[in-house]
Amino acid sequence: MPSIEDVAKKAGVSVTTVSRVLNNRGYISSATREKVYQVMKEINYQPNELARSLFRKKSNLIGLIIPEIAHPFFSELTQYIEYYAFKNGYKLLLCNSEHNREKEKEYIDMLKKNQVDGIIMGSMLQETADYLELNLPLVSFDRSIADHIPLVSSDNKNGGALAAQILIGKGSRKLAFIYGGIKGYSGDLLKNKSLLAGLRYDGFTLECKRNNIPYLNYYVEIDNYSNLESTVDQIIGFFNENQNVDGIFATSDVIAACAIKALSKMKIKIPESVKIVGYDDIILASLIAPAGLTSIKQPIEEMAKQSVELIIKQINGEHIERKYILEVALMERGTT
Amino acid sequence: MPSIEDVAKKAGVSVTTVSRVLNNRGYISSATREKVYQVMKEINYQPNELARSLFRKKSNLIGLIIPEIAHPFFSELTQYIEYYAFKNGYKLLLCNSEHNREKEKEYIDMLKKNQVDGIIMGSMLQETADYLELNLPLVSFDRSIADHIPLVSSDNKNGGALAAQILIGKGSRKLAFIYGGIKGYSGDLLKNKSLLAGLRYDGFTLECKRNNIPYLNYYVEIDNYSNLESTVDQIIGFFNENQNVDGIFATSDVIAACAIKALSKMKIKIPESVKIVGYDDIILASLIAPAGLTSIKQPIEEMAKQSVELIIKQINGEHIERKYILEVALMERGTT
Repeated sequence: MPSIEDVAKKAGVSVTTVSRVLNNRGYISSATREKVYQVMKEINYQPNELARSLFRKKSNLIGLIIPEIAHPFFSELTQYIEYYAFKNGYKLLLCNSEHNREKEKEYIDMLKKNQVDGIIMGSMLQETADYLELNLPLVSFDRSIADHIPLVSSDNKNGGALAAQILIGKGSRKLAFIYGGIKGYSGDLLKNKSLLAGLRYDGFTLECKRNNIPYLNYYVEIDNYSNLESTVDQIIGFFNENQNVDGIFATSDVIAACAIKALSKMKIKIPESVKIVGYDDIILASLIAPAGLTSIKQPIEEMAKQSVELIIKQINGEHIERKYILEVALMERGTT
Repeated sequence: MPSIEDVAKKAGVSVTTVSRVLNNRGYISSATREKVYQVMKEINYQPNELARSLFRKKSNLIGLIIPEIAHPFFSELTQYIEYYAFKNGYKLLLCNSEHNREKEKEYIDMLKKNQVDGIIMGSMLQETADYLELNLPLVSFDRSIADHIPLVSSDNKNGGALAAQILIGKGSRKLAFIYGGIKGYSGDLLKNKSLLAGLRYDGFTLECKRNNIPYLNYYVEIDNYSNLESTVDQIIGFFNENQNVDGIFATSDVIAACAIKALSKMKIKIPESVKIVGYDDIILASLIAPAGLTSIKQPIEEMAKQSVELIIKQINGEHIERKYILEVALMERGTT
């Protein structure tokens, strides 16, 4: 591959001059500029972006830390984040933390060392937020982990309320809130109002109380996303012990799909005997159950767009708000 | 943020010396080395990875070009590619081409300029392969686009044969091969044996002929992955015109899910009246139909592992083969 030295030699100028042409700095005569460009074209010189980044102190890289790219919510979000990043001239370094603290910290160190221009963080762990003292543009989505980090989130509380409303409106009289976490997370998810499950539960229970409808909550442990059989079995266990439950709000469409599978294995009819509402409205939601899964739609594209814009505004030194809460919507389909 | 100059000044050495310590090059006394490390720690100096990459001529970046991260096959593959890349000390630049030639080319230019150490290419377009004259470690998966690019693929031909076998074995007597492409692709997909659909069709038709079972093929145009309603409607149209078809092999689980939805809208029973086999065995396959979707499992983790290993072997100058064809397996569930 031709080097900057080759360009300089062939153009009869110094390496510094070529560098100035590339970075558009310092005085260069237009004749020299033209000569340098002509040689670059002739010998097919590719400017080294690393060297330019170093010179400009700008890498045009955004680090994206998410727990699990194979999970539909995160892969759909990433699709849109990539779209808006690319549109604005940024590239994406994909960091899949696998819900693992050590890996998350290693990735943050790596992103610092690679001089990314900003970091978008999906579902970061609290410990990491404490660890994360960066002089870098940051955006957190879906989780309010620290006061100094701008947050983009959907209106989880209203989402929970909408789920309870549709279940009650369709005739359910004993509801269950089924939420899940990767092994190691604990049952106090619901008490922590900074977490999405807590807010969804809040909205859900308020609506139940307003209507005098009894409710339960049930925590399913998710071994890992690619092995959902144990999640299905846990939900079967729950139904065996709570046969009068006739309405379920699952905190993700994936958990809702597990509940549908559990009920189908038990020969319990949906929606006649039990109604189900999911959360996220992933692309496959309309294909999960025979007539589609009723779900609370997160504005995934809007969340992605907002996250990228907030990083860019911070890079440009513009003022931004601390919180961006985006609206959710009920998508009514065959499970209610 | 403290700079290398700050470290040099405080340690009483030259910048070159600090750089040598960082890069472990040239003779440095252990006293000097210790002093430099101590100062770095004291002032919390973060070595600039960009500068080090430039020095070492190695970025530890792998570029991953895929058409659509929101598609479950690609998000699951990416999850594993990230896992094996991270394990080997590499970071991933995610390039989502959106099936767009221009974007694909722009990304390749970007990856060259950013001096990635290698590129893993999922489903690259032929035109791009011609454009792609790189002195870089490359791996292509699932598509044999050019003779000089190492290929990792699953055994698509055998996958097609397995699908026909299970359908025929379970009693289907008129089969349909339903395949799809993003708008702009054309119907000759089946004739091009370098494409996965062509190979799957090959295995499928050979098995049908061997058993004297008639078959059709039907091409569905996919507007984009996030809007599958039109795909469902096209399949309804196909069934209205071909009411004697009683076995379907869909070339992806997503298309199979669309077929299930189409049949359920038409009140046609699965598997009693029509049997369905998908392809990929995405995580949600077991949750798509009430009793799960029968599918041909691609060895997604193995394909990812092999791709990363082939990039690393090329970086290390080791010998590699031209083709790695990995085995598929039938996952029998409720739709057959």
